[in-house]
Amino acid sequence: MEALLEEIIRDCAVYKAQGRPASYIPELAKGDVNDLGIYVVSSDGQSSRAGDWHKPFTIQSIVKPILLLMCLMDNGAAFVREKIGVEATGKPFDAINVDGGSLAAQHLNPMVNMGAIYMSTLIRGRSGGERFERLLELTRLLAGNRDIAVDENVYRSEKRTGNRNRALAYMLKTYGMIDDDVEDVLDCYFRACSIRVDCRDLANIAYCFANRGRAPITDERLFPMEYAHFVNAVLVTCGMYDGSGDFAVRVGVPAKSGVGGGIMAVAPTRMGVGIFSPGLDEKGNSLAGIKALEELSRRMYLSIF
Amino acid sequence: MEALLEEIIRDCAVYKAQGRPASYIPELAKGDVNDLGIYVVSSDGQSSRAGDWHKPFTIQSIVKPILLLMCLMDNGAAFVREKIGVEATGKPFDAINVDGGSLAAQHLNPMVNMGAIYMSTLIRGRSGGERFERLLELTRLLAGNRDIAVDENVYRSEKRTGNRNRALAYMLKTYGMIDDDVEDVLDCYFRACSIRVDCRDLANIAYCFANRGRAPITDERLFPMEYAHFVNAVLVTCGMYDGSGDFAVRVGVPAKSGVGGGIMAVAPTRMGVGIFSPGLDEKGNSLAGIKALEELSRRMYLSIF
Amino acid sequence: MEALLEEIIRDCAVYKAQGRPASYIPELAKGDVNDLGIYVVSSDGQSSRAGDWHKPFTIQSIVKPILLLMCLMDNGAAFVREKIGVEATGKPFDAINVDGGSLAAQHLNPMVNMGAIYMSTLIRGRSGGERFERLLELTRLLAGNRDIAVDENVYRSEKRTGNRNRALAYMLKTYGMIDDDVEDVLDCYFRACSIRVDCRDLANIAYCFANRGRAPITDERLFPMEYAHFVNAVLVTCGMYDGSGDFAVRVGVPAKSGVGGGIMAVAPTRMGVGIFSPGLDEKGNSLAGIKALEELSRRMYLSIF
Amino acid sequence: MEALLEEIIRDCAVYKAQGRPASYIPELAKGDVNDLGIYVVSSDGQSSRAGDWHKPFTIQSIVKPILLLMCLMDNGAAFVREKIGVEATGKPFDAINVDGGSLAAQHLNPMVNMGAIYMSTLIRGRSGGERFERLLELTRLLAGNRDIAVDENVYRSEKRTGNRNRALAYMLKTYGMIDDDVEDVLDCYFRACSIRVDCRDLANIAYCFANRGRAPITDERLFPMEYAHFVNAVLVTCGMYDGSGDFAVRVGVPAKSGVGGGIMAVAPTRMGVGIFSPGLDEKGNSLAGIKALEELSRRMYLSIF
Repeated sequence: MEALLEEIIRDCAVYKAQGRPASYIPELAKGDVNDLGIYVVSSDGQSSRAGDWHKPFTIQSIVKPILLLMCLMDNGAAFVREKIGVEATGKPFDAINVDGGSLAAQHLNPMVNMGAIYMSTLIRGRSGGERFERLLELTRLLAGNRDIAVDENVYRSEKRTGNRNRALAYMLKTYGMIDDDVEDVLDCYFRACSIRVDCRDLANIAYCFANRGRAPITDERLFPMEYAHFVNAVLVTCGMYDGSGDFAVRVGVPAKSGVGGGIMAVAPTRMGVGIFSPGLDEKGNSLAGIKALEELSRRMYLSIF
Repeated sequence: MEALLEEIIRDCAVYKAQGRPASYIPELAKGDVNDLGIYVVSSDGQSSRAGDWHKPFTIQSIVKPILLLMCLMDNGAAFVREKIGVEATGKPFDAINVDGGSLAAQHLNPMVNMGAIYMSTLIRGRSGGERFERLLELTRLLAGNRDIAVDENVYRSEKRTGNRNRALAYMLKTYGMIDDDVEDVLDCYFRACSIRVDCRDLANIAYCFANRGRAPITDERLFPMEYAHFVNAVLVTCGMYDGSGDFAVRVGVPAKSGVGGGIMAVAPTRMGVGIFSPGLDEKGNSLAGIKALEELSRRMYLSIF
Repeated sequence: MEALLEEIIRDCAVYKAQGRPASYIPELAKGDVNDLGIYVVSSDGQSSRAGDWHKPFTIQSIVKPILLLMCLMDNGAAFVREKIGVEATGKPFDAINVDGGSLAAQHLNPMVNMGAIYMSTLIRGRSGGERFERLLELTRLLAGNRDIAVDENVYRSEKRTGNRNRALAYMLKTYGMIDDDVEDVLDCYFRACSIRVDCRDLANIAYCFANRGRAPITDERLFPMEYAHFVNAVLVTCGMYDGSGDFAVRVGVPAKSGVGGGIMAVAPTRMGVGIFSPGLDEKGNSLAGIKALEELSRRMYLSIF
Repeated sequence: MEALLEEIIRDCAVYKAQGRPASYIPELAKGDVNDLGIYVVSSDGQSSRAGDWHKPFTIQSIVKPILLLMCLMDNGAAFVREKIGVEATGKPFDAINVDGGSLAAQHLNPMVNMGAIYMSTLIRGRSGGERFERLLELTRLLAGNRDIAVDENVYRSEKRTGNRNRALAYMLKTYGMIDDDVEDVLDCYFRACSIRVDCRDLANIAYCFANRGRAPITDERLFPMEYAHFVNAVLVTCGMYDGSGDFAVRVGVPAKSGVGGGIMAVAPTRMGVGIFSPGLDEKGNSLAGIKALEELSRRMYLSIF
């Protein structure tokens, strides 16, 4: 398996320079497009790795499936289906889902920023700070890594420049969907996006979803199977921004990308995969990362379809 | 298995009257909402059935995955990805995917009418008539039923009243996407939607997709595995109109519904399912049919997520 | 006055080559961008002219205010306000005003193609042919020119290639807004757009609107003052496609342009103006024509604001 | 004239109870729907009044034309046309004019909130506070009333609850259109909307626009004629929210309404009109106020069309 991963990393090296790091905050623009790493945790207990799998990066939108999971654990599936909705909207990651002056509940989606900000207020906790701590704890638990922490530079950068998210949060407040102080809500969200992980962390988290709620190695049940189905389904329809349909056809597994260059991919019952390469395509997905996943899926027959 | 199906049909009977038959053509409005049938073809070669599985109905939009398959077989996956696109648009089945005066290629989708009409011109054949004959032959082959034919009453009704599809076809012509005579193109499409099937036919067709291109019983390869992945992936993101996201969460299998009341569901490697109940929900999907599929998925652990 | 017009034509000659003739039908693409003409009919009974005022061209969208007038004369203002609506939509001339699957009545507008096609079915007459004859008669009456006729080449060209209008008409039929045969409806509309006029005709027609319903010279009342107000108001908000707001600011008079290169401008109580120059700007308005009107308005203080 | 106004107030009393005061802030909800007043300043130097013309209310959106005027005076017409645009968008007053992820400059409009907030940053001044003071001074100058001041209760209420405007301002900041601190920008805007006026003030302001830049009585030139044309033109296409088209047809004069119940109407060369009645129609315009204006226009032949 490790030989296969090495080969994939080698074959996909050519794509690294075709992508460009996210530029909206200086911290992300520093990403080295030469980085490409992969980590795989398989259901047989094996883990394999290649390339720059150990390099840290910020989780960014890949925190959305974890937010969704916690939202499900705290409120149940019926609540989430009713309050946030799960239909693909065909909109890019920063879409303002406002239609005709009213914010249709069914037009939110857990994988677009507005839906994610909304979710961050629906998890339990008396304050944004408390909610964030619970989310960080869940992330550490899923990843099996107590050392996961926030990248303070990225966090401050996000907080300073995150005006689009401010606009989205005030829009939610306008429609009476959030009661809390907007900056308190956003502080939780900006911290969540700034959680620092590496490919192994993502692979371990992905494995929990692949294993329908059970942890790697210990096989301990961390969350109900139903919630794994829920999150994985949402990832297939909306996880890769408005490249989700094409990704489903070409790769065929639930996955979530972040503008930090990470991709978390879930091959149900088979494996969890973490990938990192900061060069993004025009849709905001790691370009070489998708190529590597496509190769892995093709050679390992991972498509769930 | 048959006992399970009987039980599901019984349990879901209560939902039959909650749906309403499609009313846009008189022929469909005649559908009896008391009908509910199911047919399952399993990978172990068994087939099971319950309820009104033998009642005939028109295939309607369920012909779209077959059109897509033929389009793939005739042109290859790259062509289809480029020309039609596969992104979910979040639009209902009759959406005119026109944006800002230009028809963005990536906004077409094989599962909305405009994309399907376009696909019907991309399959091989010197005329609409010849294209339809090839499509009908493929349908018969997948279903293993030489007797499949067009319901002439429904066809004439569609042809007479199908002005929305006419509008879509003329829009395609405006953008230079179709060269042929619009009525010739539509004649092929209206015939395709009027193909008469029953639950067994749909289950057999679904089985070919579930079995990644091999026929039931004979296991003969009818089309490449890659095309099964392609079609199944598109079905998950867009097969159930703008209820696709919710269906993925609740049921978790590739499926396609038609306003005739049919649903074709694909449980990869496991089974093909055909369901029929003409009462539709407000999104145009068979209401009791979805409930029956949800039950079947829950009891048989069919979710691919 | 004639000297002023000569000067304007000379000053605006530089803009002639900056525009491009409409290219969607071969007949229009033949337009000579070197043509620029103007004709003014003043309330003091004088008429003045300069440049290529005598060159014939097809009326195209400038027939819309005449259609609206006849629609008002046949049905009254309340009917038109309810059935077609008069809000600016900010959409270009071929916009499909379909919103969320339903065709909101208030989203039609007399100055976009869909609204105009709809209007052409609301004027009195037992057939498309009869309706067209009545419209042609009204055009001749307003222009005081019995010789006005259809340009048969343009008409045939429109009819052959007018697939976008076909799409719009079938969409109207889908929503139950037109009962008649679509080709019969379109035949009337294509003929209407192909009426051949010159600058003098447009100036005379404009004068009737400027004179609130009374003819030039004879001062005979041709239609009620209220309808002149109605048409002029609609022209200000929507007459120049999505350049209407800018035109109101810069020129400040009700006006309607057509892709044939004509502009009809109405200076209430002051004068009617006809302009012709086939080079269009990117919004579909005669580029040199607008410049000439801007000059005329500036020098004659025509702005109604 | 006064008798006419009395009669109109009497005739329109029946419409007062059909409207409802704005409810989005408690201060506005207190508006008494029984109030209906009108004040007219004519070009012959006469002024006339009837009903509750002396009752104070907040100017709300009627400050937009004054903001636009100051923006023109500070930057010129070319700047405003380029930076803000003047096309009608057919969108209601709180529309977020974001299209496909980019904020098209031409989609802003001086009469929608986003455009107005943007304008408030384009007038001269080193801070929001200084900009507001200049705007207040201009308002007092136009109205000829040194006592005009902010309603502090409404201002605080707006500031506390104005989250939609916060969303719009952060969206502008996201697109790099405003550099200043958002709360500083909004403070200026909220104060501007909270300026307290009565019908006489509005009539005097309107008269300046009607008189193409000259003050009532003194006939002193306050601003160039061109800017009066500009503002009046924008008012006709967009001044009455998405009821502008219908208002142009029915009433036919440049006008601006505010959710405080005021309407300022401009009859060029003829008169300035101020109206007040807090009951609003579903588009946010004073219901009885529009009826009164329609009557006044009909009887005095005010339509500019």
